[in-house]
Amino acid sequence: MGSSQIRSELFRSQVLQGNALGDPSERLVHVVLPAGYADGDERFPVVFLLAGFTGTGASFLKYEAWEEDILQRMDRLVSSGLVRPMILILPDAMTRFGGSQYINSAATGRYQDYLLELVDWADHSLRTLPQREARAIAGKSSGGFGALRMAMDHPEAFGLVGDHSGDKYFEYCYFPELRRFHRAVEAQQDLDGLLRDPHRARPHDQAFRDVMELAAMSSCYSPHPDSPFGFDFPIDLATGAVRPEVWERWREHDPLVRLSSAVEPLRSLHLLYLDCGAQDEFYLNVGMRLFHEALEAERIPHQYLEHDGGHFGLNHRLDHSLEAISRAVG
Amino acid sequence: MGSSQIRSELFRSQVLQGNALGDPSERLVHVVLPAGYADGDERFPVVFLLAGFTGTGASFLKYEAWEEDILQRMDRLVSSGLVRPMILILPDAMTRFGGSQYINSAATGRYQDYLLELVDWADHSLRTLPQREARAIAGKSSGGFGALRMAMDHPEAFGLVGDHSGDKYFEYCYFPELRRFHRAVEAQQDLDGLLRDPHRARPHDQAFRDVMELAAMSSCYSPHPDSPFGFDFPIDLATGAVRPEVWERWREHDPLVRLSSAVEPLRSLHLLYLDCGAQDEFYLNVGMRLFHEALEAERIPHQYLEHDGGHFGLNHRLDHSLEAISRAVG
Amino acid sequence: MGSSQIRSELFRSQVLQGNALGDPSERLVHVVLPAGYADGDERFPVVFLLAGFTGTGASFLKYEAWEEDILQRMDRLVSSGLVRPMILILPDAMTRFGGSQYINSAATGRYQDYLLELVDWADHSLRTLPQREARAIAGKSSGGFGALRMAMDHPEAFGLVGDHSGDKYFEYCYFPELRRFHRAVEAQQDLDGLLRDPHRARPHDQAFRDVMELAAMSSCYSPHPDSPFGFDFPIDLATGAVRPEVWERWREHDPLVRLSSAVEPLRSLHLLYLDCGAQDEFYLNVGMRLFHEALEAERIPHQYLEHDGGHFGLNHRLDHSLEAISRAVG
Amino acid sequence: MGSSQIRSELFRSQVLQGNALGDPSERLVHVVLPAGYADGDERFPVVFLLAGFTGTGASFLKYEAWEEDILQRMDRLVSSGLVRPMILILPDAMTRFGGSQYINSAATGRYQDYLLELVDWADHSLRTLPQREARAIAGKSSGGFGALRMAMDHPEAFGLVGDHSGDKYFEYCYFPELRRFHRAVEAQQDLDGLLRDPHRARPHDQAFRDVMELAAMSSCYSPHPDSPFGFDFPIDLATGAVRPEVWERWREHDPLVRLSSAVEPLRSLHLLYLDCGAQDEFYLNVGMRLFHEALEAERIPHQYLEHDGGHFGLNHRLDHSLEAISRAVG
Repeated sequence: MGSSQIRSELFRSQVLQGNALGDPSERLVHVVLPAGYADGDERFPVVFLLAGFTGTGASFLKYEAWEEDILQRMDRLVSSGLVRPMILILPDAMTRFGGSQYINSAATGRYQDYLLELVDWADHSLRTLPQREARAIAGKSSGGFGALRMAMDHPEAFGLVGDHSGDKYFEYCYFPELRRFHRAVEAQQDLDGLLRDPHRARPHDQAFRDVMELAAMSSCYSPHPDSPFGFDFPIDLATGAVRPEVWERWREHDPLVRLSSAVEPLRSLHLLYLDCGAQDEFYLNVGMRLFHEALEAERIPHQYLEHDGGHFGLNHRLDHSLEAISRAVG
Repeated sequence: MGSSQIRSELFRSQVLQGNALGDPSERLVHVVLPAGYADGDERFPVVFLLAGFTGTGASFLKYEAWEEDILQRMDRLVSSGLVRPMILILPDAMTRFGGSQYINSAATGRYQDYLLELVDWADHSLRTLPQREARAIAGKSSGGFGALRMAMDHPEAFGLVGDHSGDKYFEYCYFPELRRFHRAVEAQQDLDGLLRDPHRARPHDQAFRDVMELAAMSSCYSPHPDSPFGFDFPIDLATGAVRPEVWERWREHDPLVRLSSAVEPLRSLHLLYLDCGAQDEFYLNVGMRLFHEALEAERIPHQYLEHDGGHFGLNHRLDHSLEAISRAVG
Repeated sequence: MGSSQIRSELFRSQVLQGNALGDPSERLVHVVLPAGYADGDERFPVVFLLAGFTGTGASFLKYEAWEEDILQRMDRLVSSGLVRPMILILPDAMTRFGGSQYINSAATGRYQDYLLELVDWADHSLRTLPQREARAIAGKSSGGFGALRMAMDHPEAFGLVGDHSGDKYFEYCYFPELRRFHRAVEAQQDLDGLLRDPHRARPHDQAFRDVMELAAMSSCYSPHPDSPFGFDFPIDLATGAVRPEVWERWREHDPLVRLSSAVEPLRSLHLLYLDCGAQDEFYLNVGMRLFHEALEAERIPHQYLEHDGGHFGLNHRLDHSLEAISRAVG
Repeated sequence: MGSSQIRSELFRSQVLQGNALGDPSERLVHVVLPAGYADGDERFPVVFLLAGFTGTGASFLKYEAWEEDILQRMDRLVSSGLVRPMILILPDAMTRFGGSQYINSAATGRYQDYLLELVDWADHSLRTLPQREARAIAGKSSGGFGALRMAMDHPEAFGLVGDHSGDKYFEYCYFPELRRFHRAVEAQQDLDGLLRDPHRARPHDQAFRDVMELAAMSSCYSPHPDSPFGFDFPIDLATGAVRPEVWERWREHDPLVRLSSAVEPLRSLHLLYLDCGAQDEFYLNVGMRLFHEALEAERIPHQYLEHDGGHFGLNHRLDHSLEAISRAVG
């Protein structure tokens, strides 16, 4: 029955032009087309798949021993009848610091708007079913965060959402890391140089990654045009103390905090699929439980499952969201 | 010139009688007497040494390869002329959950008052110099916390304080552990049984220790007579979410929070010695810096040093506090 | 000046047909062509790059945050003048268990012969300089092992070798892992099922990876056609004891053991480049030192460097071997 | 019914006088006397309890939260009727490097002979039952090793043996550590100074402990009077390579190797009790299984159990050996 095909195109984003970090506004977008796409004129549902922090669309295509890549996964799911043929869009929303969280920020760029640009582009360039009822967005970790956030902000664009182990309850998934982030900052000889050009740093050890994650999340959650790097750190770099007013700005991005102002958008979804591992290394399962409880309280329909995994090696969970999306599209 | 002697006595506490956890009110108190104590009638300064969490006064006497015990330490310090002969009191403030933080709590017992009982006892049973100017209290970790707290609450009793790596800035030393504590609680088959009789639990692994530390700190910081175990947990045991109102009660015990209402007591001290390791595994150095800054702001005299160690293997730091105490006694 | 291009072709191996593990005999081979390759008729030196255990040629192309892929690396090196334009061949020598070590084995397949097939193919399909003086082979870890082994076995094929942190001194790089491998084996519910189809196992945790590595190395080093899986384990699966006769067969593959019978081939090389990190997590630096000493004793020319890194995040070391290769080609 | 009492005496050893490391020949020996010992004239079986590496007899007396000390343990076991009243001897066989393995070595001292001295001393100073049928020796880890070795070398002295997780199968319990020991040695600024006076080293971190363990085991297993420290290291300190001839001398101390020449002594025992944890962090359970198999092959009666613990927190296993000893004494 043939197999999926990858099509990779250079997409020229309008909204990323002149972005604050000077990251490219031209990005490679990878599209997974169903088997037989070239031979027919059928239209297909679309799923935007968002990679986690430090990943891009290309990450779904990479070789990993004993794992399927996304094409093999789709071929198996479709041939088994569990999932209908669909188009997958794998965007690149990388920033210099490791990721955009798929939101707009003055300190990074308008990455949520960029996803909307890609929706337009997909509807014009590909044989999509161009309605929100047939357009899904899903991801894991930061990708799950970005998918859920899109649903809250732009319910008109996406009618179905899959959130695997997405960032939530910042008190647990970020706050406990701040003290370690600070120690990593203290260990740097040249913090400015590192933030200006992380690619030149060696080695890419845990302290490097901690500084990057701190910079990335700060640039997404607490932009501040007048500050040296365009954003505020939630910690005082000298003492290590938390800066409560900056931390409060981070929290405003917590899906648990935003939920109350996004009840209608979420209620309008055709699918809200959520899962998380009970052994999640960032304890995201607590946030997921609280979000589930809040959805229940608001009577927002959703599917929720706590599986027995951790935060890593969860590619196989995509089977579940893709199947749920396929079924919900009808 | 002889050597220090240990004298161990069973002390019958009044204030611990009928304590909430049913822990013994009779405790062994170990006293380190200076060489030649028995042969003279000289009076000596007194230092109360407080052990860290899971330790008691006996911990200062235990054999550890390549380490001095407290008698050997004193003999060396005295014979080198760095420290004058002093009496050391090594109290036992253990509770069922691993420690009392040396404070009064309805859920554990009046452990701070018990230390005051021991002051009285020492002045009556030993040839002490019975003035606050010659009475010090010092310790590491929870022992440092207890020493500093005593100075805030009872400046009339102790005129000199040594705080090595004491608990401070609860946002960093406790809050980040709550998520792990919760997971440890979830892993228990029989939480009630465990809390009722931890001695029977096997093995004493990390999850066991996490549950104990959660129970211990909850019993010290958030007692609640009407709750099943006599205290409130700062987390919802079902979801894992933080309970902000309980957490706020914990924070009221943070020396950083209490400082503003203890300025006069602290200013009245003859010695306030503080140190902490820059690599402290619980990031207590951040709390120590903030406390140091606050002391500076209040113009409270103190000594403060950030050394390059971590939180463990710090016995040798006692040399510094004992020497500072000896010098300050004059 | 343009940039490198990737060309990916399905290569039909003769020698892998009917291989013992039933792994595919058709493999995607990725070729990195120098900028301007399509427009001229120049011939170029060739470098075979071998991936480490669990990797394939595709691993050199994968996206990794803050890292160049191999095309970007080559473009930078060539445009800086440090490296002349060269063709890179990125072969796939994967097996069901995670890797072939690039050697022939009755239990896996003739993977060394397959590399020689690719040499032929490259010389016929690409504008290579078809002499050993212009043909290099290099890699890291298992890739370094495979490169060095090729030089020992087929000096007529490759005149230049780069070995980054390659497997050596099996007493240190494998033996100490056997006890942990055994415990991982003991933890399996269905070892046979796992060995038959590792792709279905969940999760791919450390115990899974340990079993795979044990099976992979056993299949490479101690094939045994009559045994259930076609190879012998170097440990008794029941007790965990080492089987000395099997272990001895492993050791026969240790470059340190083979060196004495490969002096002439190694001496004939135009380049033998070796480096390793002083903090290598598998302690390969000890093996590298011993190999260096043995090369010295045999007066075999080589370059050797112990850098201050570990075993991971060493992509940038390729700069050094590629530069040495380029210079040695002349 | 009263409780056990501790009696601590300074024992002047003849055989430790002038020992190679200059460690004290006078040692504190702690004796646990059964309740009522002082009031009667009954004679009691004797159990020598040997501490693990870095421990001494005093380690059995130390305070540990949620754990019994040895007196409390005996009181509970006796009052429950599981164990008859017995005298426990807790010897100090410490050396400068952390332990003697309870064997004679020219590089440390005659520590096995010293235990025999203590047997004599005990029979003359205490109301022991002075026959091997009523004299047991037991311990954990290095203590288990020492107990088993004593039974092999001096069956006339001890008729009962308890070995908890004792060192065995040196290929698994020591060999895999050599590479890490070497790296720890490389990290030392002043190895000579460290070996001469470990007490002054700071901090006592993992590298320190690794160097100590290497020196300790080398001094016990491969003494060499002419070498700088009186013993040979099993690794070349420059390269890190194993020195096979020294390693072979270590192996001669492996109970698995010695068994064949100690069949009669072991067969003469009234009790040979062995246990080990299936999750032992040093993989001693493999050695224990092999020893058990060898005992079976030689038809040497013994009890053997693999419990589900690790190597630490095993104090409660003493209940099992003490009960077995008590029952076997009859």
